[in-house]
Amino acid sequence: MYKIVFMRHGESTWNLENRFTGWTDVDLTEKGVNEAKSAGKILKDAGFSFDLCYTSVLKRAIRTLWLTLDEMDEMYVPIKHDWRLNERHYGALQGLDKGETAAKFGDAQVLVWRRSYDIPPPALEAGDARTSFNDPRYAGLPKEAIPLTECLKDTVARVMPAWNEEIAPAIKAGKQILISAHGNSLRALIKMLDGISDAEIVGLNIPNGQPLVYELDADLKPIKHYYLGDPAAIAAAQAAVANQGKAK
Amino acid sequence: MYKIVFMRHGESTWNLENRFTGWTDVDLTEKGVNEAKSAGKILKDAGFSFDLCYTSVLKRAIRTLWLTLDEMDEMYVPIKHDWRLNERHYGALQGLDKGETAAKFGDAQVLVWRRSYDIPPPALEAGDARTSFNDPRYAGLPKEAIPLTECLKDTVARVMPAWNEEIAPAIKAGKQILISAHGNSLRALIKMLDGISDAEIVGLNIPNGQPLVYELDADLKPIKHYYLGDPAAIAAAQAAVANQGKAK
Repeated sequence: MYKIVFMRHGESTWNLENRFTGWTDVDLTEKGVNEAKSAGKILKDAGFSFDLCYTSVLKRAIRTLWLTLDEMDEMYVPIKHDWRLNERHYGALQGLDKGETAAKFGDAQVLVWRRSYDIPPPALEAGDARTSFNDPRYAGLPKEAIPLTECLKDTVARVMPAWNEEIAPAIKAGKQILISAHGNSLRALIKMLDGISDAEIVGLNIPNGQPLVYELDADLKPIKHYYLGDPAAIAAAQAAVANQGKAK
Repeated sequence: MYKIVFMRHGESTWNLENRFTGWTDVDLTEKGVNEAKSAGKILKDAGFSFDLCYTSVLKRAIRTLWLTLDEMDEMYVPIKHDWRLNERHYGALQGLDKGETAAKFGDAQVLVWRRSYDIPPPALEAGDARTSFNDPRYAGLPKEAIPLTECLKDTVARVMPAWNEEIAPAIKAGKQILISAHGNSLRALIKMLDGISDAEIVGLNIPNGQPLVYELDADLKPIKHYYLGDPAAIAAAQAAVANQGKAK
């Protein structure tokens, strides 16, 4: 039997401001920093120790991981940064808050983009300053791999190769792994592991900064999963995420 | 022409307490944290941007690197942790301060261990709680690779393969590299690059938290080297290190 731990980054400044973030590289809030430290303490107290960590190339996930490992006194654990674990790219909505988005596109349309599995928001235009083409962290990628928008289906399509090529073989090699990532890249992994339908996965809310353990059988099929830590804190974090969703 | 940047970690708690540290995993002082942040600012202002970083498995070097990359807004840069970049193992002196060391071994003997290239301090005994055999960060190593003491010659012998097998090929592949390491693992690299003699290398003092640039030709032979940043700050840091040495 294998175990892997997933964790969504702590609260970010744009979670707090209720802006569509996507690939924008915003930092953690003070609350987010504390969530990450708390996650480290919970993991340590539960006896976890990691051999390998994966994260995205976005600082809210990286800082969450650094703070967690620091709290566990395991700063030496190798970390692989993989752009494929980035948050879903939110296209032309990136940077807009609820009011701006509603004013620009209408509430009904925004609901479609948020609730559908395969309808992406409008793409960024090629000349938009929000595109990632000139960002050095994506310099090694072919231009066509860098999205201008994504639906959740697109996110799943780029997360899966990271799992199949990198993470799954490492689990089978016996590595104890922690993945610090984002609401939608984690949805992608959980959809695949638990076989959740396209319609249901968009309703799955993953709380910020709460370690989520998956126990897997020899074929990496889930046996069970559970959050570590105080159930009341987890419930509060899940409610906060669900409300973020509603408010957006 | 290639460039590589070396940096010794910021001041550690045992630098401050004047204890022999070696492989003991002590943290940075507040001054050390500020040195690391300052190094990041200096590197950013000088136009540096990194593709790959190397560090040891000791937190004073890792934290220095994290703080530097954070300040540069390059937290996504891949980091390779390599135990071969660890500080020289200081054997039975680890944890002792100047007074304890002199009382136990005599000033003259301690001077021999500090000034000689190839005479190691007494080895830790196998049952000593200070050995690294049960530390998970060395779990992948054969027991005989884990030192119980080292002279500088021993440190050079284990640093060189890391350079030859890992770092030099990455430089030649065009990677812009930052190495965050320790006084003696950096001495080892500089000895090799500049062809410094066994007698002279023990007198080379590398200041804490000051980025040191080496410009290399196509065969990785040094063209020139220089510290970045304010010359007065560098001189002060070098004097502080030389005094640490004397006080020990």
